[in-house]
Amino acid sequence: MKLYTRTGDAGETGLYGGERLGKDHPRVQAYGEVDEASSQIGFARSLLPQAHEELDAHLATIQNALFDLGADLATRAGGPHEAKVRRMQEDDTALLEAWTDRYTEEGPPFTGFVLPGGHPAAAALQVARAVVRRAERRVVALARAEDVNPEVLCFLNRLSDLLFAMARWLNAREGVSEPLWQPRPSSPNS
Amino acid sequence: MKLYTRTGDAGETGLYGGERLGKDHPRVQAYGEVDEASSQIGFARSLLPQAHEELDAHLATIQNALFDLGADLATRAGGPHEAKVRRMQEDDTALLEAWTDRYTEEGPPFTGFVLPGGHPAAAALQVARAVVRRAERRVVALARAEDVNPEVLCFLNRLSDLLFAMARWLNAREGVSEPLWQPRPSSPNS
Amino acid sequence: MKLYTRTGDAGETGLYGGERLGKDHPRVQAYGEVDEASSQIGFARSLLPQAHEELDAHLATIQNALFDLGADLATRAGGPHEAKVRRMQEDDTALLEAWTDRYTEEGPPFTGFVLPGGHPAAAALQVARAVVRRAERRVVALARAEDVNPEVLCFLNRLSDLLFAMARWLNAREGVSEPLWQPRPSSPNS
Ligand code: B12
Ligand code: B12
Ligand code: B12
Ligand SMILES: C[C@H]1O[C@@H](n2cnc3c(N)ncnc32)[C@H](O)[C@@H]1O
Ligand SMILES: C[C@H]1O[C@@H](n2cnc3c(N)ncnc32)[C@H](O)[C@@H]1O
Ligand SMILES: C[C@H]1O[C@@H](n2cnc3c(N)ncnc32)[C@H](O)[C@@H]1O
Ligand SMILES: [Mg+2]
Ligand SMILES: [Mg+2]
Ligand SMILES: [Mg+2]
Repeated sequence: MKLYTRTGDAGETGLYGGERLGKDHPRVQAYGEVDEASSQIGFARSLLPQAHEELDAHLATIQNALFDLGADLATRAGGPHEAKVRRMQEDDTALLEAWTDRYTEEGPPFTGFVLPGGHPAAAALQVARAVVRRAERRVVALARAEDVNPEVLCFLNRLSDLLFAMARWLNAREGVSEPLWQPRPSSPNS
Repeated sequence: MKLYTRTGDAGETGLYGGERLGKDHPRVQAYGEVDEASSQIGFARSLLPQAHEELDAHLATIQNALFDLGADLATRAGGPHEAKVRRMQEDDTALLEAWTDRYTEEGPPFTGFVLPGGHPAAAALQVARAVVRRAERRVVALARAEDVNPEVLCFLNRLSDLLFAMARWLNAREGVSEPLWQPRPSSPNS
Repeated sequence: MKLYTRTGDAGETGLYGGERLGKDHPRVQAYGEVDEASSQIGFARSLLPQAHEELDAHLATIQNALFDLGADLATRAGGPHEAKVRRMQEDDTALLEAWTDRYTEEGPPFTGFVLPGGHPAAAALQVARAVVRRAERRVVALARAEDVNPEVLCFLNRLSDLLFAMARWLNAREGVSEPLWQPRPSSPNS
């Protein structure tokens, strides 16, 4: 079987359930950015030192959940295949919160903005954090136009905080120091 | 000669042919995202183990073609410099299809969605795949407003499938297994 | 103290000064993309060979300045906290120009478009370059709707040129050659 189907060459594509819409439709934009976020998380994982097995397992669980989240976005409420899809739930976000608390407690205290970077895997997690926030913005735009499961927004909002905590935890474990933003003196004329 | 010209500081820039337009114009957005896709492919190449010379050569050919594609987008039909530009053609896409068939046949069979990741170069190819799809969405938005060579859309659509097949092929060659998405049981209330 | 506040779960967030607006507002989009650009620069730094201390220091200075720039965008003119913020200034851009001239002079001459890539850190700088240009496009869109400090646009415009010069300089130092785009013969029918 061929991977490509050529059916999307004119710029239209299908939701789960078969409905056709433009590839620039806010719904496709939203799950497309989620796909990029998951890919960026996968890239961060590929740079993780072997010692951090538990962090790696958490990130794998997140990637899996992002597919559930993608299916949630790709499936309209009331659409034909809805019964096959698992919608995002409160306990998905609760899990992220529990992990965030743990990485925060075990990590360095927050005393201001940190310059994103450090160990390559931590730096890649910071990129993933920013991409998750971009995905969140796209979902907000979609929610302005159409129904979206509100748990999708909770999950993405919490995920970017978790990725921030993970990046800082990882740098601390790897002995990499994170310089803080040094705001320069404010403008005289403002 | 200086690299910077300062001519774009007020937010306008030029197409090939000289026409000025805002940097947030759909046309500039479109070739800007193509530029990012090519950069991401270049990054994946930089992580490729030396053994994979042919894959590397294919990716170089693709980067070169993405410049032709960028020039296609940056040059309006009927514009002053059009005669200097090579428009994308059917055989560009046909080449991608031939390569996709080969990487697909030589790679692991498709039995479901894979969590993007694995070898760093494969993981970076998955990021490139997602960025190519973002570029495709931008070109669809442009095509809604202005004329676009339809071969540009075919090429980008096929390219993301090819990058997917390459990433999977590379992981298989490097002995990295790819876990599948495990959809969780569907929601009771849906 | 918890990292997450849950206050943004419904898709709204706050500027510096407290004003609430949607996460898909052009202002939030703009500083969100700047955040991604800085994260991508941090990632490039994480791949830099130790020898390049001065380049690394320049990139750290740029990341710090991008926070000043983010605060500039996140703070409305005339808003409550404006006195605390340092607006971007002409000398910020002048510094980028001086560095660009230096990396350009010490680097290989420009004879055409180069395929982005080479050393992993140089390739990542090329990705950062493309992301900075994406951020620039978002700021242009914002400036179309609301007041923006014009120095923000100058800075981002110059920054992408500097990152290009740095990437090429780094490849030259690391002994990596950069193939040029080979435009194919132009279309017969155009
Ligand atoms: C939404 C969607 C996506 C989402 C992901 C899904 C999500 N949940 O987030 C995104 C946008 C990320 C995506 C990406 C891709 N997708 Co998709 N996607 C769909 C879509 C519209 C619905 C899938 C879904 O969510 N189903 C919900 C679950 C609950 O139901 P399910 O149908 O039982 O799901 C299973 C799922 C879990 O077991 O895996 C499946 N599967 C079975 N065979 C195959 C074969 C391939 C090649 C793939 C990728 C999946 C796949 C199958 O879809 C379908 C088309 C359709 N209308 O069904 C295409 C579809 C499955 N995708 C397809 C393709 C090609 C891809 C990409 C390779 C495209 C690309 N170049 O990036 C990637 C692969 C990503 C990956 N990591 O594996 C093709 C597969 C064609 C084929 N030859 O079989 C389909 C059929 C669309 C089409 N062209 O007609 N996709
Ligand atoms: C479209 C375009 C792009 C596209 C790429 C082109 C594509 N085909 O996809 C994108 C958006 C990716 C791009 C990126 C950049 N571009 Co540009 N681009 C243009 C534009 C509008 C048309 C170029 C084109 O496609 N020509 C079509 C081919 C068929 O014709 P050509 O003109 O003979 O093309 C050759 C020359 O343009 C050229 N070339 C000759 N000297 C130089 C010098 C430099 C520094 C560069 C980058 C290219 C270059 O290389 C081509 C192949 O040989 C020109 C401005 C204009 N109106 O001409 C700027 C222009 C060439 N770009 C310029 C610059 C600075 C860049 C960037 C460095 C910007 C940045 N910071 O990212 C990058 C470099 C990317 C790279 N990898 O090398 C400058 C060069 C200034 C100078 N000092 O010479 C120009 C002149 C715009 C300007 N500021 O006035 N660009
Ligand atoms: C604009 C903004 C951003 C910008 C960056 C700022 C910039 N200048 O570019 C962007 C979009 C990049 C950003 C990112 C983040 N931000 Co922010 N941001 C703000 C905002 C709206 C204004 C901050 C600012 O620019 N102040 C201007 C300077 C001159 O004034 P200042 O207030 O004295 O600034 C200092 C403090 O804000 C501070 N700081 C003090 N304690 C803490 C604690 C944390 C956890 C952080 C991140 C910062 C921080 O560091 C600054 C320098 O010393 C505030 C909310 C608000 N209205 O104040 C949130 C805020 C500071 N951010 C917050 C968070 C959580 C984050 C992120 C972790 C979100 C994420 N998941 O990505 C990241 C962290 C990025 C990093 N690298 O450290 C939270 C902190 C919550 C807490 N528990 O303390 C706040 C309070 C928003 C909220 N949720 O209520 N942010
Ligand atoms: C930390 C700060 O980042 C901003 N903020 C909140 N959510 C997003 C997002 N998805 N993208 C960009 N910026 C965001 C708000 O201004 C918040 O206070
Ligand atoms: C695999 C699935 O991805 C979606 N799809 C198709 N093209 C794009 C794109 N450029 N960006 C995001 N999603 C896309 C469609 O829903 C398709 O069925
Ligand atoms: C080098 C060429 O890139 C285009 N250009 C200028 N600024 C941007 C940007 N922010 N994003 C994408 N393309 C841009 C113009 O067409 C310029 O001539
Ligand atoms: Mg948030
Ligand atoms: Mg497709
Ligand atoms: Mg520019």
